[in-house]
Amino acid sequence: MTTSEQASTVLQGTPVVPGLACAPALLVRGEISPEALARFGTGDFDDAEAALAAYDDAVTAVADGFARRAERASGAAAEVLTASAGLARDKGLRGAVRTRLRAGDPLLGALDGAVEQFSGVFTQMGGLMAERVTDLEDIGRRLTARLVGEPEPGVPVPEVPSVLVAADLAPADTAGLDPQRVVALVTERGGATSHTAIIARQFGIPCVVGVGGALEVAAGALLLVDGSTGTIEVDPDPEQAQARVERDLADRAVVGAWSGPAATADGVPVKLLANVADGSSARDAAGAPVDGVGLFRTELCFLDRSEEPTVDEQAAVYAEVLNAFSGRGPVVVRTLDAGSDKPIAFATHEGEENPALGVRGLRLSFDNPGLLDRQVAAIAQAAEETGTETWIMAPMVATVAEAEDFAGRVRAHGLRAGIMIEIPSAALIADRMLEVVDFLSLGTNDLTQYTMAADRMATDLTHLTDAWQPAVLQLVSQTAAAGQAAGKPVGVCGESAADPMLACAMVGMGVTSLSMAGAAVRPVGVALGGVSLETCREAARAALDSRDPMAARTAVREVLDRGRDAG
Amino acid sequence: MTTSEQASTVLQGTPVVPGLACAPALLVRGEISPEALARFGTGDFDDAEAALAAYDDAVTAVADGFARRAERASGAAAEVLTASAGLARDKGLRGAVRTRLRAGDPLLGALDGAVEQFSGVFTQMGGLMAERVTDLEDIGRRLTARLVGEPEPGVPVPEVPSVLVAADLAPADTAGLDPQRVVALVTERGGATSHTAIIARQFGIPCVVGVGGALEVAAGALLLVDGSTGTIEVDPDPEQAQARVERDLADRAVVGAWSGPAATADGVPVKLLANVADGSSARDAAGAPVDGVGLFRTELCFLDRSEEPTVDEQAAVYAEVLNAFSGRGPVVVRTLDAGSDKPIAFATHEGEENPALGVRGLRLSFDNPGLLDRQVAAIAQAAEETGTETWIMAPMVATVAEAEDFAGRVRAHGLRAGIMIEIPSAALIADRMLEVVDFLSLGTNDLTQYTMAADRMATDLTHLTDAWQPAVLQLVSQTAAAGQAAGKPVGVCGESAADPMLACAMVGMGVTSLSMAGAAVRPVGVALGGVSLETCREAARAALDSRDPMAARTAVREVLDRGRDAG
Repeated sequence: MTTSEQASTVLQGTPVVPGLACAPALLVRGEISPEALARFGTGDFDDAEAALAAYDDAVTAVADGFARRAERASGAAAEVLTASAGLARDKGLRGAVRTRLRAGDPLLGALDGAVEQFSGVFTQMGGLMAERVTDLEDIGRRLTARLVGEPEPGVPVPEVPSVLVAADLAPADTAGLDPQRVVALVTERGGATSHTAIIARQFGIPCVVGVGGALEVAAGALLLVDGSTGTIEVDPDPEQAQARVERDLADRAVVGAWSGPAATADGVPVKLLANVADGSSARDAAGAPVDGVGLFRTELCFLDRSEEPTVDEQAAVYAEVLNAFSGRGPVVVRTLDAGSDKPIAFATHEGEENPALGVRGLRLSFDNPGLLDRQVAAIAQAAEETGTETWIMAPMVATVAEAEDFAGRVRAHGLRAGIMIEIPSAALIADRMLEVVDFLSLGTNDLTQYTMAADRMATDLTHLTDAWQPAVLQLVSQTAAAGQAAGKPVGVCGESAADPMLACAMVGMGVTSLSMAGAAVRPVGVALGGVSLETCREAARAALDSRDPMAARTAVREVLDRGRDAG
Repeated sequence: MTTSEQASTVLQGTPVVPGLACAPALLVRGEISPEALARFGTGDFDDAEAALAAYDDAVTAVADGFARRAERASGAAAEVLTASAGLARDKGLRGAVRTRLRAGDPLLGALDGAVEQFSGVFTQMGGLMAERVTDLEDIGRRLTARLVGEPEPGVPVPEVPSVLVAADLAPADTAGLDPQRVVALVTERGGATSHTAIIARQFGIPCVVGVGGALEVAAGALLLVDGSTGTIEVDPDPEQAQARVERDLADRAVVGAWSGPAATADGVPVKLLANVADGSSARDAAGAPVDGVGLFRTELCFLDRSEEPTVDEQAAVYAEVLNAFSGRGPVVVRTLDAGSDKPIAFATHEGEENPALGVRGLRLSFDNPGLLDRQVAAIAQAAEETGTETWIMAPMVATVAEAEDFAGRVRAHGLRAGIMIEIPSAALIADRMLEVVDFLSLGTNDLTQYTMAADRMATDLTHLTDAWQPAVLQLVSQTAAAGQAAGKPVGVCGESAADPMLACAMVGMGVTSLSMAGAAVRPVGVALGGVSLETCREAARAALDSRDPMAARTAVREVLDRGRDAG
């Protein structure tokens, strides 16, 4: 299907997982397009027999699809899929279609009529048969799609390694996805924190989101997806594309071999830390080349509980995480960040009009300071028991008074106190915050949400919720500069820390540590090791001088490429 | 009740409407405090007759209260109140109380028992009588309150000019409030944009909100409320307090006589503009000493309509406003700021998790640019027809690309284009915004909400949603400085423009116009006229250097007082 003679077109989106991949496009469409239905019309068949032959071809394709999925599945899922394959091939259904075709119905009409007729019969029979109506209707849609030349609705099962192209992917869509056969993800919608991006990061496959026109690509067209630049070449020269993918694989091998510790090419150390949520994720992260934990989210200890866990219960959970990093600290523990989208039965304020702007994070302690004090006591107890160096920080801090009060409660246990910088106010007064706390940690996801006044979950505003937005970078830079001036550490623990280019630019701004999923550490370590601190600083200036995220990415890439070549 | 011998105590809150008032405290409490009930206990009466005498006194007080309210009311309300007075005096109820007292019940128990007994009888009788149960229970609560020495539940009717002291006031509480008898409002909760503040501004009476401990003041204690400093003196020396109130009245007379145009003491002009919403409010505002309209909210034209008004319909509404300021422009028209809390049937995106961070303001045009284009065309048509100088600005702008696109659409009609600065991002990149638009207008209410990540409607976060927060002032200052550097106007159209002290500080930052309710203009004009631009600049520096809103207010007040004395 690829036509290397014709000039290739290039689509552009937001890159979220770096890496290069080249494979045919596998399109995921929710609905059969009205255009395709109109184009197909009555199908232009010579006679009823020709139309029935087209029906038989569609049945074979749909039934084979089910059969292949059944082979790969097991248990109940396999049985259902085998039954669906049989239902698609059903002779009775074929007979009903044939009768209608011979009576002069057009093919799509005949199919619809036959499906409707059998649905009626199944419903009348009731019981188990009635439950097959949904399957029958699904088969009807799949046959229609095959007939008009559209992909079957739902996420198709890739038969060869493919680039999955979709409007967006929901958790249900990706549940059964086979990472061996999906080599890259491309979506029209979504942002850097969308579900698609999270899945791509898990699979470690290149991913570009927010690609306008992605679904207009021809099914099966060869795509060269660059998850670092956000470009998608349609119908590239296959040989050149293959060469580039191989070079990229070699680069990835370098990344895979990276074992830390992180430093710039001229030897300036940068702490790479892990984000963890419990003992299990902490033990996993301890296997990665990290220098400690930059963000231990403690919500998991509180979720699904009707009452607050006791200090001893909490201390036991915290000690599990601290033990995993014994002698490899610090472990930065964030106090409860409940509220908003993470409700906790005994603490959350219900019925807020805008929960993201409501009583969440540290604010829960305004009318319930005991909750915070007990958690801090439990963390201190775990630190004492394990001997691991432990810092404590608060989420959702807006004012110096809040930071000062929090620091007092933490220091009463002899531990270092810090705050998340995720509210614009906190970034704007970072210098004053550092007069009362020991360290800062930039939560770039929320900082971006508030700075841009755009919900990070709103799918229609993802072009705004991008940490590369110049205003967000300005706040990051201002916060990092305050840390440098005060001689205190400033880390980043949002998604942006795992973006190798942005990580370099943020180190250039003065950020001293980057915390991320353990799996994301190596590419960042390699990127930092390839450039000098001065190149990072130049990248920071280029990013800050740019007018929009796209321009900032391009400018930073040029600076880093130049720096690497020179180095 | 006032005891001028004892040292007076001073409470502190957030000042929202300036002015001085001195009167006895009238407490609004929702519930009778458990402490008062416990303190009263069995009442310590010599015998049943003594207890019954106390009951009779309470009945007289409660019934007289109803009777007085009935005199002032009319129609059905008066009838209900008269009936309530009769019910309070009911002989049967008194008999039931007496029987229980003689049987040895304590007074409060006897009252509760009698009310319960009569409620049962009324309920059994059904119909109209059953409906009186609610009234009877209300009377029971009022009698109990009188007996234990607490104010009656609900907003009492002031019998003398009083300072109303409440936890907070809801719209229903203030509906029948008599501005002749309420000389100041003091609340424990609430912020500068709360309902209490709005009512106080309407009445033009001093108001202080967020006053910790306000409800612990003794009922009837003399209070000296300073709506400029936020202090409330309890039991001040009555003569000194009276002298201060009279001096304040004289100052207010100066304010009442102010007729513009506004300028600093050294003659630097500042444009004072009006906020309007339709022809009627525009004609009202045209009677105030203003230099034009700084914010014409166009939502009213769209609300309560199932379909978008036509260009001609819109133009007719806009022309009414423009006509009111014929030859007195500019009139700054803000395009539709729907979405979030202001839903418009044909435009709003439903079901957003955090509407304030969703598709509102200019964002509605992302997938519906025609809506914006038609409104701009209608405004241009009205400007053409009326000949009034008309500028157009967009709400909820976050990026340069959005501003540039909007400006192009406006300039196509030959009008000046600007944007609201209400998203932190827009303030942070104000210099780049001014490369593509002609003017900026700071919407400090929303800017504060996003900068502090605190819903401006959330009653438990009002200490955060204060435009005096140092981070907010920093963004205002940065925006104003960008305007000065570009030689383009930067106005303020949030609530903060009506705060005389903050207005002076913002002019010192470089703000060139202040837009507010017409009624709020004079105090701002007088404040500006009392100080030089250099004093305003000093006030700006003092505000920016302060650690919190309270410190900022104190620092600015000192600078302005010094500047006035020197002038």
